[in-house]
Amino acid sequence: MERNKVSKLHDDLVVIDGLIVSDFGPEIFREMRRGGITAANCTCCVWEGFEETMRNVARWKGWFRDHRDLITQVRTAGDIRRAKDERRTGIILGWQNTSAIEDRLEYLDLFHELGVRIIQMTYNTQNLVGSGCYEGRDGGLSDFGHDVVTEMNRLGILCDLSHVGPKTSEDVIRASRQRVAYSHCLPSGLKAHPRNKSDEQLRFIAEHDGFVGVTMFPPFLPKGPASTVDDYVAAIEYVIGLIGEDRVGVGTDFTQGYGKPFFDWITHDKGNGRKLTDFGEVVNPAGFREIADFPNLTSAMERRGWRASRIEKIMGGNWLRLLEDVWGG
Amino acid sequence: MERNKVSKLHDDLVVIDGLIVSDFGPEIFREMRRGGITAANCTCCVWEGFEETMRNVARWKGWFRDHRDLITQVRTAGDIRRAKDERRTGIILGWQNTSAIEDRLEYLDLFHELGVRIIQMTYNTQNLVGSGCYEGRDGGLSDFGHDVVTEMNRLGILCDLSHVGPKTSEDVIRASRQRVAYSHCLPSGLKAHPRNKSDEQLRFIAEHDGFVGVTMFPPFLPKGPASTVDDYVAAIEYVIGLIGEDRVGVGTDFTQGYGKPFFDWITHDKGNGRKLTDFGEVVNPAGFREIADFPNLTSAMERRGWRASRIEKIMGGNWLRLLEDVWGG
Repeated sequence: MERNKVSKLHDDLVVIDGLIVSDFGPEIFREMRRGGITAANCTCCVWEGFEETMRNVARWKGWFRDHRDLITQVRTAGDIRRAKDERRTGIILGWQNTSAIEDRLEYLDLFHELGVRIIQMTYNTQNLVGSGCYEGRDGGLSDFGHDVVTEMNRLGILCDLSHVGPKTSEDVIRASRQRVAYSHCLPSGLKAHPRNKSDEQLRFIAEHDGFVGVTMFPPFLPKGPASTVDDYVAAIEYVIGLIGEDRVGVGTDFTQGYGKPFFDWITHDKGNGRKLTDFGEVVNPAGFREIADFPNLTSAMERRGWRASRIEKIMGGNWLRLLEDVWGG
Repeated sequence: MERNKVSKLHDDLVVIDGLIVSDFGPEIFREMRRGGITAANCTCCVWEGFEETMRNVARWKGWFRDHRDLITQVRTAGDIRRAKDERRTGIILGWQNTSAIEDRLEYLDLFHELGVRIIQMTYNTQNLVGSGCYEGRDGGLSDFGHDVVTEMNRLGILCDLSHVGPKTSEDVIRASRQRVAYSHCLPSGLKAHPRNKSDEQLRFIAEHDGFVGVTMFPPFLPKGPASTVDDYVAAIEYVIGLIGEDRVGVGTDFTQGYGKPFFDWITHDKGNGRKLTDFGEVVNPAGFREIADFPNLTSAMERRGWRASRIEKIMGGNWLRLLEDVWGG
């Protein structure tokens, strides 16, 4: 493994990361630039309700002003192309939960206008919309959840199903008239885990014109903290083997800058309830430890012998087409 | 007084009402069309806090969708001209209080992005920003209030001072680097009332490049409920006599569709505290009872012998220039 060989190809790519939930601020924004990331889905709601999420969004608005040399807000696929031209990182405001709309459908409209473009329907456990991947049972998409999908479809907000329970995921895939995604998941064909998706589930979303972003979050990889960037590429290739190379992308789940308090918060129901899972040690794959290592991912794909056309698709081209389909140009 | 003679001029005018706080919905929107109103500052916060105001804004977003044949949201002066061309009424989302931002300056950014373009600093009583016109004393603009003015200036939100206390008003007029307005007031030179402004106050705002919208709210007019549309025009003329015809406009304060519960709510501190004032019977001036009577206002101006150029300015031209100055084109 040649960790420091930087790919020449990388600089020319539209690189889209389908999920980053890091300790955002200027340091991370500089890391994103070093990594050559064109755009990333950046989480601004995990367990928060309406008011706290609004404050998170307001904080992003301040960052867009104060760090305009590094980042720019993305609302359309065109904004991603613009970010590439301007050598800035396009920030897609995204949620990993629908907790932020509480019990008011009309809040979706407000958040959409403020730029929220990707929303995961549930985070790990049951909410008003449906059930999560760590819940004991999954009764499927609620009636309110159906209304949420309809409104997200109308507005053009991507439905994300990564942490969603299997029945709720299936219901959303069937109910949505827009394409939907697992933005950041791994195949349970490689490792059994409540967060990983079976071959059947991956084929099901693909058959419904959906999308799969592959994460490198080590607790879900077969070798855990001993994984390398090459193992990550192998996992992506496994998914490509199942559903082809035209609906697969990257969704790293980088949690850079965070420590134990953050992992405690995300692994307890609603942030402070029952313990849902234990990640053990979170050490990212060797060669892909930090956001700035993104060029190594492209190098690893080249090393694996992927054609440039496949690398372009997986590193961002497929994401861009999905987002264009759901958001409009 | 010829109440039903409709002015030919009226149809060609850009008509801007600087303050309407009516029981909004399709009936009022149809009234606005009948009245030939090009744009109006429509109140969506009186005493409400953050969350309730967000819901009010969301309700407007629904109306913009459901009644797009009648109304359209205004964010720029260009949107007002567009509304005129499209024969719809442009809705400017406005507040009569800063209660909606609670203690968070950054909320201004979110509301501005959602389209709030005119904010009154205080409503009748003291708040975190300053004091109101019915308050026993006025300590002036608070330090937080100074920050609010600075942020409104940065964003391009008009500072409205109609219900603001005299010292706080003076402080805002001095502090603001953008033009400010009394959007709906009457001269105390015609009738002494805590809500009316002295000749000195009117001259002071004018000398600082500010603006005065004149209301017809009968409790503040010399003849009260016995007033006519001609008395209203006489009151506007009084203000023009003080500060010229280039910074004066209309701000009716129509409360159409509302009854006692609404007036109880607005005349008690924070909606449910001490009684601040008693309007007595609220009957709008004869000839200008309802929003649809707007053409009669133009007729009354013609009857008074105003030149067309003055009528154009007072009915909307001056407002449009002010809003363009503060908001940008």
